[in-house]
Amino acid sequence: MKTEIKCPFCNPDISITSFSESQNFWAIYDIAPILPGHSLIIPKRHIKSIQELSTEQFDEFFQFGREVTKKLSLFFKTDAFDWIIQENEEAGQSIPHLHLHIILRTKDDLPNAGDWYSVLKNKNKEEVVDSENRPRFSIDELTNIAKKLKDAFVELDKEKSNT
Amino acid sequence: MKTEIKCPFCNPDISITSFSESQNFWAIYDIAPILPGHSLIIPKRHIKSIQELSTEQFDEFFQFGREVTKKLSLFFKTDAFDWIIQENEEAGQSIPHLHLHIILRTKDDLPNAGDWYSVLKNKNKEEVVDSENRPRFSIDELTNIAKKLKDAFVELDKEKSNT
Repeated sequence: MKTEIKCPFCNPDISITSFSESQNFWAIYDIAPILPGHSLIIPKRHIKSIQELSTEQFDEFFQFGREVTKKLSLFFKTDAFDWIIQENEEAGQSIPHLHLHIILRTKDDLPNAGDWYSVLKNKNKEEVVDSENRPRFSIDELTNIAKKLKDAFVELDKEKSNT
Repeated sequence: MKTEIKCPFCNPDISITSFSESQNFWAIYDIAPILPGHSLIIPKRHIKSIQELSTEQFDEFFQFGREVTKKLSLFFKTDAFDWIIQENEEAGQSIPHLHLHIILRTKDDLPNAGDWYSVLKNKNKEEVVDSENRPRFSIDELTNIAKKLKDAFVELDKEKSNT
C-alpha cells in the first residue's frame, strides 16, 4: 500500500477523530468546517479516485455515506445537504485522497445557496480546503466532537432497533 | 406514482435526449451546460431524495454514474470531474427530482477551480440551474448531442469487450 507521508487522511489520528466507520471507510468531521456538521467520508486505504474502488467497496462507500448523512441530518435537525466529490486537481481536489464532502444545510445559512463552494478553492489559490484561513480544530477538539457524534449515533441505532 | 406535471426530468423528451440508460436511470446532457460534457444522472421515477432509493437502486445509481463518468472522461479526454448532489432547496436543489451533476474539468477551464459552482445558484436568486441566462439547447440540439455520445459509448463498449 502506497501512502503519501503527508496525507492528512492517512494520519493515525484519524482513528481517534473518526465518529463512525464501516469496514473500509471512516466518517470524520471536517477540520475546518464550512458549516456545522460538515463531514467527510474517506477510504481507510490511500486512494485518489472512485475508479480505484472495487464494485463492493464503491457500493459500501456510498451506502455508508448515505447512512452517515441520515444520522447527521437527525442530529443537526435538517434533511438538506450537499454531497461533493472532486476528482483531480483540475476539479479542485486539494488532498489526493478520495473524500466525499457532506455539507448539511439549513435555510439562509449562507447568503446564497451556492456560496459554500467558493470557500472550497483550488490549492493554488489564496484559500484551500482545510485552509488555515478558516478556523481549524485541534485534535482534542475534533476528538470531543467525534465522541459526541459517536454517542448520538449509538442512540440513533438503539432507537432504530426499537422501532 | 406521484409526478409533478412541470418537472423537466419527467418530460417524455427525456427518452430521446438521453444518451445512456440503466434499468432505473437516465444519463442526459445538461440543457445549459456549465462546461463541455456537463451531464446528469436522473432516476426514471420522479423522486426527490437519495433516501427514497432502495439499496439496490441506490447502488445502481452510483455504479451507473461511475460508468457514465468513465466514458465521458474518455470521450472528452479528461479524467478530472466534480460530482454534486444537492438535496432540498436549502442546499440549492432547484428541480425537486434527484440528479447527480457530472461536471468534467480540464486545466484552467475556469479562472478558479471552484467557480463552476457560483453558476449553480438557488432558484430564488438571479440565476438558476438550467437558467435562461445560460445558453440553452433546443430539443433537436440535445438529441444530436445524445446521438453522438450514444455512438461513442457503443464504440467504447466494443473496445472494452475486445481487450
